[in-house]
Amino acid sequence: MTPKSIQTRTYAAHSPDQPLTLHEIQRHEPRPNQLKMEIDYCGVCHSDIHQARNEWKNTVYPCVPGHEIVGTVTQVGDAVKKFKVGDTAAVGCMVDSCRTCAPCKDNLEQHCENFPTFTYNGEDRVTKENTYGGYSQRIVVDEHFVLNVPANLDKAGTAPLLCAGITTYSPLKRFHVGPGQRVGIVGLGGLGHMGVKFAAAFGAEVYVISRSPSKTNDALRLGAKGVILSTDKEQMKQFDRKLDFIIDTVSADHDINAYMNLLKLSGNICLVGAPENPLSVEAFSLVFMRRNFSGSLIGGIKETQEMLDFCGQHNIVSDIEMIRMDQINEAYERILKSDVKYRFVIDMKSLA
Amino acid sequence: MTPKSIQTRTYAAHSPDQPLTLHEIQRHEPRPNQLKMEIDYCGVCHSDIHQARNEWKNTVYPCVPGHEIVGTVTQVGDAVKKFKVGDTAAVGCMVDSCRTCAPCKDNLEQHCENFPTFTYNGEDRVTKENTYGGYSQRIVVDEHFVLNVPANLDKAGTAPLLCAGITTYSPLKRFHVGPGQRVGIVGLGGLGHMGVKFAAAFGAEVYVISRSPSKTNDALRLGAKGVILSTDKEQMKQFDRKLDFIIDTVSADHDINAYMNLLKLSGNICLVGAPENPLSVEAFSLVFMRRNFSGSLIGGIKETQEMLDFCGQHNIVSDIEMIRMDQINEAYERILKSDVKYRFVIDMKSLA
Repeated sequence: MTPKSIQTRTYAAHSPDQPLTLHEIQRHEPRPNQLKMEIDYCGVCHSDIHQARNEWKNTVYPCVPGHEIVGTVTQVGDAVKKFKVGDTAAVGCMVDSCRTCAPCKDNLEQHCENFPTFTYNGEDRVTKENTYGGYSQRIVVDEHFVLNVPANLDKAGTAPLLCAGITTYSPLKRFHVGPGQRVGIVGLGGLGHMGVKFAAAFGAEVYVISRSPSKTNDALRLGAKGVILSTDKEQMKQFDRKLDFIIDTVSADHDINAYMNLLKLSGNICLVGAPENPLSVEAFSLVFMRRNFSGSLIGGIKETQEMLDFCGQHNIVSDIEMIRMDQINEAYERILKSDVKYRFVIDMKSLA
Repeated sequence: MTPKSIQTRTYAAHSPDQPLTLHEIQRHEPRPNQLKMEIDYCGVCHSDIHQARNEWKNTVYPCVPGHEIVGTVTQVGDAVKKFKVGDTAAVGCMVDSCRTCAPCKDNLEQHCENFPTFTYNGEDRVTKENTYGGYSQRIVVDEHFVLNVPANLDKAGTAPLLCAGITTYSPLKRFHVGPGQRVGIVGLGGLGHMGVKFAAAFGAEVYVISRSPSKTNDALRLGAKGVILSTDKEQMKQFDRKLDFIIDTVSADHDINAYMNLLKLSGNICLVGAPENPLSVEAFSLVFMRRNFSGSLIGGIKETQEMLDFCGQHNIVSDIEMIRMDQINEAYERILKSDVKYRFVIDMKSLA
């Protein structure tokens, strides 16, 4: 095993109900196929809050969240081929997987049958130690799980692409969204605003489905053709059976049948949030319009790279609000009130 | 309008709670694009009971059920091209549709945006009269909605293909079920037994998912590789994430999540029954295995003909119990107890 000697400042949760605080860890020196990167920016995902507060009942403390990481390579192991010192690189939700199961071989590491090693609150496959995420100065990761960042992209705006971006890109690609299609995006938050950008970039006519008319200007600016007010029966009726595809980003309990009615024959509504309670689905709506209700989970490494390359070509990044590391607890509270446009990104120099 | 002069014996329901009885109707002479056929056999579908008993709250009385019809062409209108007198022909769930909307043009008449004219309890698009189904001596139908029956097929066993057959064939084709795949069929009734036959004929490894071990011999005889006992936790666990595709034929309330757990990554469970109450779906199961939950409704005319041709090539018909017309009320009671292997078919000569 490599020595554990890389002193690293982080922000960590030490219990479910206490704010995150400065915390020092030691990371291992890179193995031959690993690289070390200084973290420049880290996005703040709602999952970070769930994990820090043990809302999934599996948090190992101390917990260092963060899985939307962009940084600069500062050291490479002997076997590293894809990266060199000085490269801008990115890390998303996973830092390892078994590499041998069918999903891994099929570039779907997020569905690794032996469970992917998540970037934080995961178990290192070699040392069995808890993994620490991107709310930290530096990280050591196997190059297979490190992405190239196109040079033209704003680094800070790139960070959220690693989770919010790929989560919406993947189902749009998998279900062949493109020109001539009408796409609905339920919820205009971190995920939703990326869904609008991607669906528009793929050539679809995009509608944000929202409970609030206040989203209209932003929706249009992000590339949507309009907003469908879900609280307005007339508007919902006007779009009855008009959409080909819907991405539902809502994690709270909600009535999915109202959205399903917006789908055309053979249409598909894809869930990318994960509501805790079961959803109630009207069988008639599925059968009589042969609709589909599907789910999607982030994306594999190959597709994540493809997404970043696509963003480079189309100059797509996330809309962000930059914060200092010591503002993280306040940022969490604002996220819980949906008061962010549309992703907080931590300037990691603030941790130096 | 053509004269209404074809005297026809039928069996009809006159109210929700009375048995079906002999009832005379007059059918119209064929229009130029219509043909008349003497009905040889008519299958008995669970829908017939729902409609006869007004369980969908839309029954027009008298109601003559029956939409699994095989007969012999006895008269053709001047414009009829596909059929001649003496041909064996079949009629399924629909006798007309608008022919102009997108689904109609896409050979999905069952999803006609202006509503298909169902074979019974429908509204004739010309006369606006109530349509009468196959529990009758003869019927007059537009040739577009009449199917050719391959000569080698048993006529009586062919009748249930027109509803139970196409309902299971269509999703298996649409979702590309074939060799190398494991398919589960939930419920071994009229629909389920056809699902087993088709999935096996398409080269898949088929499992019947049932609450009762009594189904095993039949399942194997019909072409299944085995039965998964849904009440046996060990068996359900053994097939955890092992199936590519499931057809769920159950119309009663049931826990679909237990079946969904049998699906592999990206697997699909397709509902062809239509439970009255909403189904409770675990979002995590969809998202973390990117599964699909879909629905399917009978099939279009083109696909129904394709299905019949496939049955001709593979010598597939339904397993039936033949009854006389005057046994229909008893047959209904047996269907409600699932006491039929696997479809009642009325010998329509018994109505002469």
